[in-house]
Amino acid sequence: MNYLSLSPEQLEDELERVKKEYEAKRSLGLKLDMSRGRPSKLQSDLTEALLTAVSANEDCISDDGVDCRNYGFPKGIMELRRIFAPIMGADPENVAACGNSTLNLMYDCLCDAMLFGYPESPRPWGREDKVKFICPVPGYDRHFGVTEALGIEMVNVDMTPDGPDMDAVEELVKDPAVKGIWCVPRYSNPDGYIYSDETVDRLASMKCAAPDFRIFWDNAYAIHDLYDDGKPLKNVLEAAAKAGNPDRPLVFFSTSKITYAGAGVGFFAGSKNSVDNFMKRVGVRTIGYDKLNQLRHARYFRSTQAVLDHMKKHAELLRPKFETVCDVLEKELGHTGTARWNKPRGGYFVGLNVMEGTAAETYRLAKEAGVTLTKVGATYPYGRDPHDSSIRISPSAVTEDELRAAIGILCVCARLAALNKLISDGKNS
Amino acid sequence: MNYLSLSPEQLEDELERVKKEYEAKRSLGLKLDMSRGRPSKLQSDLTEALLTAVSANEDCISDDGVDCRNYGFPKGIMELRRIFAPIMGADPENVAACGNSTLNLMYDCLCDAMLFGYPESPRPWGREDKVKFICPVPGYDRHFGVTEALGIEMVNVDMTPDGPDMDAVEELVKDPAVKGIWCVPRYSNPDGYIYSDETVDRLASMKCAAPDFRIFWDNAYAIHDLYDDGKPLKNVLEAAAKAGNPDRPLVFFSTSKITYAGAGVGFFAGSKNSVDNFMKRVGVRTIGYDKLNQLRHARYFRSTQAVLDHMKKHAELLRPKFETVCDVLEKELGHTGTARWNKPRGGYFVGLNVMEGTAAETYRLAKEAGVTLTKVGATYPYGRDPHDSSIRISPSAVTEDELRAAIGILCVCARLAALNKLISDGKNS
Repeated sequence: MNYLSLSPEQLEDELERVKKEYEAKRSLGLKLDMSRGRPSKLQSDLTEALLTAVSANEDCISDDGVDCRNYGFPKGIMELRRIFAPIMGADPENVAACGNSTLNLMYDCLCDAMLFGYPESPRPWGREDKVKFICPVPGYDRHFGVTEALGIEMVNVDMTPDGPDMDAVEELVKDPAVKGIWCVPRYSNPDGYIYSDETVDRLASMKCAAPDFRIFWDNAYAIHDLYDDGKPLKNVLEAAAKAGNPDRPLVFFSTSKITYAGAGVGFFAGSKNSVDNFMKRVGVRTIGYDKLNQLRHARYFRSTQAVLDHMKKHAELLRPKFETVCDVLEKELGHTGTARWNKPRGGYFVGLNVMEGTAAETYRLAKEAGVTLTKVGATYPYGRDPHDSSIRISPSAVTEDELRAAIGILCVCARLAALNKLISDGKNS
Repeated sequence: MNYLSLSPEQLEDELERVKKEYEAKRSLGLKLDMSRGRPSKLQSDLTEALLTAVSANEDCISDDGVDCRNYGFPKGIMELRRIFAPIMGADPENVAACGNSTLNLMYDCLCDAMLFGYPESPRPWGREDKVKFICPVPGYDRHFGVTEALGIEMVNVDMTPDGPDMDAVEELVKDPAVKGIWCVPRYSNPDGYIYSDETVDRLASMKCAAPDFRIFWDNAYAIHDLYDDGKPLKNVLEAAAKAGNPDRPLVFFSTSKITYAGAGVGFFAGSKNSVDNFMKRVGVRTIGYDKLNQLRHARYFRSTQAVLDHMKKHAELLRPKFETVCDVLEKELGHTGTARWNKPRGGYFVGLNVMEGTAAETYRLAKEAGVTLTKVGATYPYGRDPHDSSIRISPSAVTEDELRAAIGILCVCARLAALNKLISDGKNS
């Protein structure tokens, strides 16, 4: 029953029915948290042997002879950089293995830009009258949090199935105050889109008024496919080098969703210039990252292929959950004509767009019925979704049964909110 | 033979003898690195069981039910904070357990001050015309590196056996541009002095023109005694609270020289205000520190007493080295009247002051003879020792035999440089 073509009477009838359905679900007293993209316990359990991959004093020396327990070697150990460099599309020499948080690396890179600028910056970004960042929306709330905290103005650009709307991006970068863009290029957060080759090429080669424009390339889901036929992502470092902008992309990647979300290893990659500049700053703030955890990861995986193979185990656990989400959405919401979503082939989220003007109400209703979603608006800069439509679903942490229940509730809430809105709009028109 | 009372002829005779001694030592072709305060392999070997303290999936849950493999809980796990809080002199609620590097925490705190200021700051420090920091000298080169990188002007204050020259400090803080002071209050780097109770009280209670003055209290060697009779350090958080300046001290501590120099846990402590403010900033830059490594540490030690007991094993390994250094210095340099040093009862360094104007030459001679020392000047802001006198000796990483040889060479070099200087001064006077 397409809600958009219902008569006022039919809408009222349907409202009565959906209200009852909502009350019935609410009375179940569920408590489900789908607010963050946390891996499940079963996913964390997959890498048990990582805990003891370095278990004796004599294990603590890396292949290149570094005692990983001691100070120094802030660029990280080579044997781990060699394993992950191909995934980042970079030479191991141009990869730094760091601590457990790429968000922290991104924060540091942006903070460094504010305080010191990049080598070719006319001045530190913090000394500019205004600095702006392009934020493809919907996007990752923590990117926006970092940008906002540092006082950088965020400019929304719509996401498309091929990546950010590049016509809009190319227009914006004519403004010299526009210094960068956030990108989650493979399985974008939350829609699960993969940037097309053309998008990558246009980002790499577009003419930017700011000489020190940077692409913050957060390739968090680089190898996080749910199916075997994952579409490849064009290598942005190669594309940028070819276009004569080798220093433009700063590439981030981590094992947070490969090994442990809170105790993995984060990586930085870029051109030689970018990595040298990064290391210069790192050398001021730390004597070195945790190399023992790097060594654990190197010893556990041993090869790039082993990492890729391991990701299939995550896919086995995640795929049914994503399929459940999309099944329930299709069954419970598809017919109403009020919502749309992408069926992601990887990543951690399903980006649901409910009827304009009803996301906040949907969130509220779901919360009351025991389902906590990512805060509505979080997928937009400043927490403001101008369409009040985007809801991020994080299916990873809960069980399939819980998920089925939770998405069922979410759909009833979305329908209830849509019906109320349609009825109220009808009365006011 | 006191060099200062030798006649020109006697100086020349001694020079000839010492030159021969130097050449003999140089021809041995040694290669010894005493440039950094790195724990030795034997010290790292002490905590082998830490590697497997968390070794199975079911071990990964903290006492308070946190899955330490997953995201979140940026303040760190309580069972570890409880163990280290007494050492920091703070309530566990006012302690954050963080990553592997307190240098990074200090950098972050200073960087936050520059970008955002503290809650009571009139404006971010970076918006002030000028920001100055008091640097007790000689001091820790990496503190000075952070301060310099952030564009903060460093003002030297002399260290005394009781801590920084407090008359000078109290005079300086009348300047509202003076926003903070670096302190290594117990076994200061490099002299090994412990701040007296009076010094702690004066720092805690002095009237500062800057409303947001901060003490960066890097208590790196809080429990790093070489002997059983270590002099206690007054609790700066209590002293500051009592004096009505609860937010003034920011306290840092780590297990870098307890477990692993590169893979330990760093801690931050302060007033409730300070910790709340710190966590607010942490919450922007990371989803959480590595809690699995925190859990390893908690499970390995279990109690504060176990940590203190463990430090005795380090003392056993380090004490003979410090005694060797001081013995050789006494024998080979004591009689010349050209050098002075403190015999530290803890910490990681011996601060040697050679004759004014000869430290750089001593360093050069030592380097040529195969002994690498901490770069001369490093113990002063901007790498400039105005007396050209301070040499930091780091005895921890080398063996006792190597140490005996290296300090022997250092003493010959110091004597050679002193003789050359005395002879040249004599000719020019």
